[in-house]
Amino acid sequence: MNQMQSVNQWDVFEVVIDGPSLNNPFIDASIEATFSYGHREVPVKGFYDGEGNKHSWRVRFMPDTLGEWSFRISSNIPALDGKQGTFRCTAARPGKHGPVRVRNQFHFAHADGTPYLPFGTTCYAWTHQPLPMQTQTLAALKASGFNKIRMGVFPKHYIYNDNEALMPMFQVSADGKEDFDRPNVAAFRHLDQQVVALRELGVEADIILFHPYDRWGYCAMGEASDHRYLRYLVARLAAYANVWWSLANEYDFLLDVKPVAYWDGLFHVVEECDPYRHLKSIHNGNPLQMYDHRKPWVDHVCVQNWDVKRTAEWRQTWGKPIVNDEPEYEGNIPRPWGNISARELVHRYWITVLRGGYCGHGETFMHDEDLLWWAKGGELRGESWKRIAFMRKLLEEDVQRGLTPYLPPSLGGTRGEWSRVSGAQDGDVRYLYFGEHQPVQSAAGLPKDDGDYEIDLIDTWEMTVTPMDRAPLPVSPALRGANGVVHNTEPEAAFGVRLPGKPWQAVRVRRRN
Amino acid sequence: MNQMQSVNQWDVFEVVIDGPSLNNPFIDASIEATFSYGHREVPVKGFYDGEGNKHSWRVRFMPDTLGEWSFRISSNIPALDGKQGTFRCTAARPGKHGPVRVRNQFHFAHADGTPYLPFGTTCYAWTHQPLPMQTQTLAALKASGFNKIRMGVFPKHYIYNDNEALMPMFQVSADGKEDFDRPNVAAFRHLDQQVVALRELGVEADIILFHPYDRWGYCAMGEASDHRYLRYLVARLAAYANVWWSLANEYDFLLDVKPVAYWDGLFHVVEECDPYRHLKSIHNGNPLQMYDHRKPWVDHVCVQNWDVKRTAEWRQTWGKPIVNDEPEYEGNIPRPWGNISARELVHRYWITVLRGGYCGHGETFMHDEDLLWWAKGGELRGESWKRIAFMRKLLEEDVQRGLTPYLPPSLGGTRGEWSRVSGAQDGDVRYLYFGEHQPVQSAAGLPKDDGDYEIDLIDTWEMTVTPMDRAPLPVSPALRGANGVVHNTEPEAAFGVRLPGKPWQAVRVRRRN
Repeated sequence: MNQMQSVNQWDVFEVVIDGPSLNNPFIDASIEATFSYGHREVPVKGFYDGEGNKHSWRVRFMPDTLGEWSFRISSNIPALDGKQGTFRCTAARPGKHGPVRVRNQFHFAHADGTPYLPFGTTCYAWTHQPLPMQTQTLAALKASGFNKIRMGVFPKHYIYNDNEALMPMFQVSADGKEDFDRPNVAAFRHLDQQVVALRELGVEADIILFHPYDRWGYCAMGEASDHRYLRYLVARLAAYANVWWSLANEYDFLLDVKPVAYWDGLFHVVEECDPYRHLKSIHNGNPLQMYDHRKPWVDHVCVQNWDVKRTAEWRQTWGKPIVNDEPEYEGNIPRPWGNISARELVHRYWITVLRGGYCGHGETFMHDEDLLWWAKGGELRGESWKRIAFMRKLLEEDVQRGLTPYLPPSLGGTRGEWSRVSGAQDGDVRYLYFGEHQPVQSAAGLPKDDGDYEIDLIDTWEMTVTPMDRAPLPVSPALRGANGVVHNTEPEAAFGVRLPGKPWQAVRVRRRN
Repeated sequence: MNQMQSVNQWDVFEVVIDGPSLNNPFIDASIEATFSYGHREVPVKGFYDGEGNKHSWRVRFMPDTLGEWSFRISSNIPALDGKQGTFRCTAARPGKHGPVRVRNQFHFAHADGTPYLPFGTTCYAWTHQPLPMQTQTLAALKASGFNKIRMGVFPKHYIYNDNEALMPMFQVSADGKEDFDRPNVAAFRHLDQQVVALRELGVEADIILFHPYDRWGYCAMGEASDHRYLRYLVARLAAYANVWWSLANEYDFLLDVKPVAYWDGLFHVVEECDPYRHLKSIHNGNPLQMYDHRKPWVDHVCVQNWDVKRTAEWRQTWGKPIVNDEPEYEGNIPRPWGNISARELVHRYWITVLRGGYCGHGETFMHDEDLLWWAKGGELRGESWKRIAFMRKLLEEDVQRGLTPYLPPSLGGTRGEWSRVSGAQDGDVRYLYFGEHQPVQSAAGLPKDDGDYEIDLIDTWEMTVTPMDRAPLPVSPALRGANGVVHNTEPEAAFGVRLPGKPWQAVRVRRRN
């Protein structure tokens, strides 16, 4: 007997079985495994992975618990049925923390408890570009501070996106059309490989399952083919720890072929097939046609909305983590969702995060060869990504449970300034962001006690952190004094700070232990 | 018989009558005049204007029609009763256009039809500062491009506002307290004089009747005194063509002593006493406690709200002109309503106006002697006022009926870009403002026909106007192409423009005649 196989926690244990030639091996064979740990059983789907004369099926499994696991495979095809075995799950590799989950209602953490603060970017069709450009994309991601990427399974047909895809996602029939019931194994293997490459970089793959920008017919394959495609995709990818499922990019632009109940059904398919319950979301086009993110199969709210001072309002509306993946992109193309300045995008990041949400990046700069990061990856050409990396590093120093925003009265808070400037707290750390505001003094959000605090001025654009002294409280604005009554609207802080009187500044306050 | 007196249209015809000593001449004597023009009769209140041993009453009247007028005065005091006379109303002085009225639902014009585009500023208590500073304020206004000023009747008690007022507004009794039923004639005469000084500068006086920032008791005088004060004030000031009535600054911070129905009553008093029906509005503190501006005695909506991309929404909510007098002030004081950058305020002006509203200015820079423009006037120290003057001059070149904004789908329009960037049109002129957006090409809002247009690039910060050529249409973003269907979301323009790819740019398009 061989020595027992082993696999690291949250890595992939894979079983490969050869089988017979079938008419349509994607449909004719069903294959499922049960992975067991003590009395616990985890059902996992397998998938056809053959090419040419090589007829093989695979089952992938990501163990979450250390110790001995066993499995048994069942299938309607006798050659695939009955295989069993055991393996040992050993400690995770260094730096591997497992899949990301929702934690503390509005925030995220890896399975091992490590906080995860999404700082994502967008390269919708990067896996469909020429391979050297994909290598460039991975290198750019590695050098950046991004830890999530939004990417489609399917290629994209859109402005600046009229090149051919690397491979068709389904096999091409004799009539030249793709057969949506026969995945192109090579194309899906390539997707697997790039998801793994992202995992090794510590980047979550926020995988977009459908989108409307399509000349191949992928967005309207019909319900049976849609469901088969999803089962196939989830069987292939779910064992990768860094997978998130984004049901759609701009789902509402597909409502004519996929009404809301249809989207509900697609969520159900993913939910049923994914034994790990990776994060699921769905992305809107028109902000007035938001999906009902209160539905229980939605894990976090994916938002496209430029109006980022409303972030805390969205938290209250949906009661789930807010990830505003499209607060408009840095760039200069004609369309106004893709041409804000770098300063503005950095500004929107700070506002979003300091109102208790998370923000996403994209770059849409005109390019002679149409090489735009947002669609194709390649090189980052803008100025915001460095400031976003700076922000991530800064927050990761202290944020553990996630930031809770200070609320204006309209959201149940007590102080009106939080409708104008942004601030948030996590235990012993708090951040205040002034943005377009440029006070020379402030006390808003500062501690009410005169404890032992370390205070820093953060220039969000210059990326500097400068220690600050505390200063006297600013003068109090006395409200009405009629009949001797004077109302004080100054924040009830124990001290103030002096600020440089220019925009884009933030303040960090940390209690010393 | 003397030669008949004459007065220019929209100037003031005044009658002075001496009378007896009375216990309280402000209450004990009622005096009213009827001014007649053919069969038309205009009732006008008079007011006590005596001081010391000089017991005189005045009646002021602003004729709006050329030709011969007559008047007859009636009073419960025999010495004041029965006086009559005639006068001739002659053509208005050059540059005098009469009071401002609402025109075209959302806009304003003078009585003679001259368009009036409000570009206002705020000096709440300027008439209560030392006289040399008031002279300075008038000089600064003259040099600026502002054509409206928000100013209180009463002095202000607030941060940076703890100096004594120039004069008490009411007579001080033996007990050292002001008697709210005996106006201080000298103080009101001074107010008259400064309203006239503004009129001569072409500046509308948006007179704030009540406000909560008070240590003298003016904000809670009681209903009888409030009504008497209003009748007195309106009798004194209504004949000045440049008067607007702002019932309150931040009316909602006085709701404990002046509930909503009480404010309604104050509106009614002003409405009844003012024969000219000067513009009436009321200003909010908390944006969630807006007065019901649909009430028929409200002429235009005074808004305090930083969220200026909602301007077109407010137009739809209230159906009246929107004047956002407090989109936050340029400055650097600790409170976030008073510390935005000059760039941000200029940005908010352009957004507001190009969404069909009007915007207001204020300056709150810290000063060693607490000389802040927003409260005291004096000198303008910021950078926004010049850009606002530039904007006013630019718009006055072409805007006649007022700007109608392009609406996003949420407000019944057809194109989503108008939720992101701002644009508006008035007949043959249109303006597009990109703000934080920095396209290198655009077609949004450009003409659908290839007519004879003059196109200019406007740098709203650098204050430059540069002629532009038309450029090819930007590439069309093709939407879904499944089944051969391609939806085009590009604006249906006949041509595009090339832009410099930096923020704060606008485009003006004028049809040549």
